[in-house]
Amino acid sequence: MIIDSHAHVVMPPQSFRYMAELVGGRANPSTNPNIPDEAVRKQAEELVRSMDAVGTDIQFISPRPYLQMHSVKPARVTELWTRHCNDLIKRFVDMFPDRFRGVAGLPQHMHESPAEKCVAELKRCVNELGFVGTLLNPDPTEGDGPAPAGLGDPFWYPLYEAMTELDVPALIHSAGSCNPRESYTLKFINEENIAVISLLESTVFEKFPNLKIVVAHGGGAIPYQMGRFRSWSVRRNSPVTFDEQLKKLYFDTCNYSKDSIELLLKVAGTDNVLFGTEKPGTGSARDPISGRDYDDMKPVIDSIEWLTDEQRKNIFECNCTRVYTRAFRNYKGA
Amino acid sequence: MIIDSHAHVVMPPQSFRYMAELVGGRANPSTNPNIPDEAVRKQAEELVRSMDAVGTDIQFISPRPYLQMHSVKPARVTELWTRHCNDLIKRFVDMFPDRFRGVAGLPQHMHESPAEKCVAELKRCVNELGFVGTLLNPDPTEGDGPAPAGLGDPFWYPLYEAMTELDVPALIHSAGSCNPRESYTLKFINEENIAVISLLESTVFEKFPNLKIVVAHGGGAIPYQMGRFRSWSVRRNSPVTFDEQLKKLYFDTCNYSKDSIELLLKVAGTDNVLFGTEKPGTGSARDPISGRDYDDMKPVIDSIEWLTDEQRKNIFECNCTRVYTRAFRNYKGA
Repeated sequence: MIIDSHAHVVMPPQSFRYMAELVGGRANPSTNPNIPDEAVRKQAEELVRSMDAVGTDIQFISPRPYLQMHSVKPARVTELWTRHCNDLIKRFVDMFPDRFRGVAGLPQHMHESPAEKCVAELKRCVNELGFVGTLLNPDPTEGDGPAPAGLGDPFWYPLYEAMTELDVPALIHSAGSCNPRESYTLKFINEENIAVISLLESTVFEKFPNLKIVVAHGGGAIPYQMGRFRSWSVRRNSPVTFDEQLKKLYFDTCNYSKDSIELLLKVAGTDNVLFGTEKPGTGSARDPISGRDYDDMKPVIDSIEWLTDEQRKNIFECNCTRVYTRAFRNYKGA
Repeated sequence: MIIDSHAHVVMPPQSFRYMAELVGGRANPSTNPNIPDEAVRKQAEELVRSMDAVGTDIQFISPRPYLQMHSVKPARVTELWTRHCNDLIKRFVDMFPDRFRGVAGLPQHMHESPAEKCVAELKRCVNELGFVGTLLNPDPTEGDGPAPAGLGDPFWYPLYEAMTELDVPALIHSAGSCNPRESYTLKFINEENIAVISLLESTVFEKFPNLKIVVAHGGGAIPYQMGRFRSWSVRRNSPVTFDEQLKKLYFDTCNYSKDSIELLLKVAGTDNVLFGTEKPGTGSARDPISGRDYDDMKPVIDSIEWLTDEQRKNIFECNCTRVYTRAFRNYKGA
């Protein structure tokens, strides 16, 4: 089975209209998002077709990260929008229960603690909508800082408590960027670096030994910059190597380059990497060299000669089912 | 010849005392940095010994980046400190003219344009002290933002004009970090990502075709995250591929991991990578696997089997002499 652990919902035109009115009207929209089934089905069917075209059995879909609007004021905009996106995802899953699973967006906002609104929405998504994981944005100011403390800080504990209680992982993925020098794509990568180091330098995994964190896009720069952190770890007489520490985290393959995926697999290990493509998304363009879209990642994994069949199966399926334990409780097969 | 293009001056205790008084006294120090020759020679000799231990013929030394204090107020602190560091470097070069070359620090400060003080100090360093290049920090606020516009912005043109007029390259290297969630090491990497994309998305190299930019630490995350930018380039119908664009820039090997250096060489090409170790520095710790220090990078380059002798010579020497054209005008050999 090919599970794409990192994908996003595709929105019908009505969602964009709602979004526009929400933002323009500052959470005072003139219409409710009453989107007919056929409009949702059209998008869901198109997404299923794009999965079929590359051999993906099931996608875990979350809100489109760069459109999460975590720093738009007032916070009510974000709250309403997050709820709308999560409800839309639920409709996709209901329409194609063997092809989709829901991953929640959270109504994170600027410096608000995730204790209340985020935990409540996560519980709603998991307990009522059947979602299997959540996005987590380390900088809900979206670069309109100062950002909250790193993910190793107790600021985030209420969310970790809820996640471990519900037994759902978080996919670390920042949202938009208000800073013209740092595009959202750069922000994704840079926040992943900050997230990895903050978590590994903290006591979070001692306090929450069952916490499961997946770092998107192959972990930003960290697998490539291992040398700095290995050395740093030795210089501080750390009882465990940086390579061992890294094993506390999971990573996905949304990286679109074979050489990089090989580096990631060597560094993070084949048990800690989850197949993910974010298709359709950033990688949806034809690579003139391979003749395939950049985000058609299955052939890339297949072409890594030194992987055993078992390791490939782990990357495509078993690592994901191990992390997203709720995903296949009632699964009937694609 | 083995040229270490990325290294930093090692400071005598008197420099630290001066630094402490400068900062504590807010640019009103009670003493001038009158450092005796023997104190400077002791540090310089130690640095030469550490070079000899790993077979480095010559190091290009600049101020220690994380101690540049670009955001300490008032700006006069930075000015005095930068001048002190550059003068100290000049003494190292004078003591061992065949083992060192000077790379300038600039008195960058918060949002001040580099037009005046930076250009003046660069000209002094090149014309009077015989320096061969300069550091360039993309965020002189040191995370105490908002940062100036990216390096593709006309804000930086006065410096590029001076650099091309003097025919010296800049090594992109940020300084400290005021942000507790982003250590200076993370800031280095993240600013490199921002710098690369800002430069490549701009018209800087059309306006300054002779501008030479070296990106430190193997280019942050960019070589590892090529897939995202390749795809982005195709989606925008860019007339040149992202891989071709990247060839406008140079990178150094201060990365401390063989797998990553191989990835860098594949992506940036063996003509665009300069040997650099930053030794002694972040990588100065014993790797329990190799039994050598992480920053002992010559054996790492030597061990990359697919490199030809000519490519190795380019990495160790020729790429550097091509970029740092002023470095060997009066060189007599190590």
